[in-house]
Amino acid sequence: MLLVSTYDEERRYHHGDLHAALLAAAQELLVERGEGAISLREVARRAAVSHNAPYRHFADRETLLAALAAQGFADLLACMGQIGAGQAAVTRLALLGRCYVHFALERRGLFRLMFASALERSRYPDLQQAAEQLRQLLGEAVAALVGEEAAEVAGLSAWSLVHGLALLLLDGQVAVAAEQMRLIEQVTGRFAEGLQALASQPG
Amino acid sequence: MLLVSTYDEERRYHHGDLHAALLAAAQELLVERGEGAISLREVARRAAVSHNAPYRHFADRETLLAALAAQGFADLLACMGQIGAGQAAVTRLALLGRCYVHFALERRGLFRLMFASALERSRYPDLQQAAEQLRQLLGEAVAALVGEEAAEVAGLSAWSLVHGLALLLLDGQVAVAAEQMRLIEQVTGRFAEGLQALASQPG
Repeated sequence: MLLVSTYDEERRYHHGDLHAALLAAAQELLVERGEGAISLREVARRAAVSHNAPYRHFADRETLLAALAAQGFADLLACMGQIGAGQAAVTRLALLGRCYVHFALERRGLFRLMFASALERSRYPDLQQAAEQLRQLLGEAVAALVGEEAAEVAGLSAWSLVHGLALLLLDGQVAVAAEQMRLIEQVTGRFAEGLQALASQPG
Repeated sequence: MLLVSTYDEERRYHHGDLHAALLAAAQELLVERGEGAISLREVARRAAVSHNAPYRHFADRETLLAALAAQGFADLLACMGQIGAGQAAVTRLALLGRCYVHFALERRGLFRLMFASALERSRYPDLQQAAEQLRQLLGEAVAALVGEEAAEVAGLSAWSLVHGLALLLLDGQVAVAAEQMRLIEQVTGRFAEGLQALASQPG
């Protein structure tokens, strides 16, 4: 095993760079071998730093997993943030929903980690905040359809819909491999249209 | 440890009774100590039968878990089956949804087991069939609202909605303890109304 001195590490990784390199190594391990394979020691090995180096940024394994989960929310929000507010509200909401479900299917290990109940939100303010931003983004998108007053319930409904669809697909509950994309489009599209129909009902 | 002879066991448990007693013991373990605590040996101990007795019904631990999950679907379907077809379609769908979410919250260990991706559906036809019945029941309930043609997508949407809501609540993503019941009512109610509004739109 290669032991790199603290001096060398500091030359190689300036300031936040070591933090980013450790997260990138953890992300690789997650994709290749699953959450169970992630340890601070293994992450250090993959980032080619000494096995004590991760402790400068992460108190323990769970803190690293929480940082990885928070990064997952940031990636998801970045993807959803590209869906312009210039779209019609009904189209935008459907596109946001598809973005969520596709993210879950493409980055399944990370998605599960983001919602792992073992990572208690109260212990990780960054993670709590990242999840809150997601809820806000969905809340704003539905508010444009149904108004501010109905947005809390409609936003939670929208989140529930895409979260449930993602997990039913991930867990193999819905056997629709060939038609998966079409179904995701239809479920999210019809949901957005349903909100619109409700909002435009007289009385 | 009490070892009961096969003869005694057979006197005590006729035919399907041992099967039911083992499932009941597994269910108790699940509630009290979680899925990880379930083993064929521990289940035998709790049912007060010899440690070989469970193998008469279950090839291995996973087969026992699959039977427990299938029983969970049966319990959920029994609960949903009580919601009469005599109700207005929009009310019935909302009530079915609440039943699903309440079941998940009240029997969380069992609910998670029912959807554990480790239990591959293709290996357990009973479990596959039980999940299929659930999807059919939801499909019929939405068909009464939106018609047969739109029922596949609407049924999957309804399932996704309540499945996602249940898991967001179980995983502590939504911090609404006090208002939980009201939110469940509103999310399921508005969803059903949204389907109705869509179905009654001209054109």
